[in-house]
Amino acid sequence: MKSPISAPPAIHLTLPDWLHDFMDSDRRNLETIESRMRLAIKLAALNVQHGSGGPFAALIADMQTHRIIAAGVNRVASANCSMAHAEMVAISLAQQKLGSYDLGGAGFAKFELISSCEPCAMCFGALPWSGIRHLACAARDEDARAIGFDEGPKHPDWRGELEKRGIAVSTDICRDEARKVLTDYAATGGTIYNARQG
Amino acid sequence: MKSPISAPPAIHLTLPDWLHDFMDSDRRNLETIESRMRLAIKLAALNVQHGSGGPFAALIADMQTHRIIAAGVNRVASANCSMAHAEMVAISLAQQKLGSYDLGGAGFAKFELISSCEPCAMCFGALPWSGIRHLACAARDEDARAIGFDEGPKHPDWRGELEKRGIAVSTDICRDEARKVLTDYAATGGTIYNARQG
Repeated sequence: MKSPISAPPAIHLTLPDWLHDFMDSDRRNLETIESRMRLAIKLAALNVQHGSGGPFAALIADMQTHRIIAAGVNRVASANCSMAHAEMVAISLAQQKLGSYDLGGAGFAKFELISSCEPCAMCFGALPWSGIRHLACAARDEDARAIGFDEGPKHPDWRGELEKRGIAVSTDICRDEARKVLTDYAATGGTIYNARQG
Repeated sequence: MKSPISAPPAIHLTLPDWLHDFMDSDRRNLETIESRMRLAIKLAALNVQHGSGGPFAALIADMQTHRIIAAGVNRVASANCSMAHAEMVAISLAQQKLGSYDLGGAGFAKFELISSCEPCAMCFGALPWSGIRHLACAARDEDARAIGFDEGPKHPDWRGELEKRGIAVSTDICRDEARKVLTDYAATGGTIYNARQG
């Protein structure tokens, strides 16, 4: 008997069209960590405004030239994929661009992940596999929890565990600006897409 | 200036062709947990044999009918994607099949994840987002570490944290058979694809 449910046996995650247009037209100077974080926060706000996902965005940047090699936005509800958090999307796109599962591989520049929010339990666990050398976050995980998002069973010493593995961590970069994107999302009735709704 | 690195702005993860052929032709009875686990272990061994990824595989099954709705194998090195662990691939494919980011959503059957190995830190964090109700594992994470795989900074009480969230956990199902796939992989010089090789 053939399955009543059929689908192509592939996972295909796309970025929304507005993001390409925005990245092509954006001409901001990205020399400071705050400028790079404000770009991530802007993408999080635009993701909500365009209805293309949750209020989270992330960038992968070359730590020396500050060139952005990949951008990701949350696509959980829009792509029907619980792993499509902004950080996972940005990391995967960067790895595809470089043609390597390891952004920390020999011969590459050093890369950082700029995220509009601290990682959930899954994204925390994904960071050591990504090859990034620096994680910068804006909103705290408690800011995401404050509007109803479950951040999962994160390691009690998540920051120390990353630092032990050679990933420097910077927090509270433009936190208030990122938190406002979260509270605005909640205030306008944005979907809180935790699992096990049934 | 255009980026010197260009790539389509999408993540596209495919399953190897042999897996479709095998799943179409396999006629085993899947009523017991051991029979479902042996199918996962068989896929892990075939993934190594075909050179299509690491020695790990996972299935998503309907807990009542035991029908397999998705299969995943490790595709980290073959897809240049550090998040392409077997569990993540199986979960994402199941969610695409059902058209929902939440396998635990209202109106769905109850689903379990059958994995040839205990989860790493990332896959552990992904489980609460997936909507599954039961996790069954064969090899222990220490068996993966014994051949050189880094399992990451997993929560010290990972099993308890899953159970608190309504995900039952069964371990050591056919452990010796799954461990043999790992030790065979190491003995034949299989790639240990941890990150930060540079």
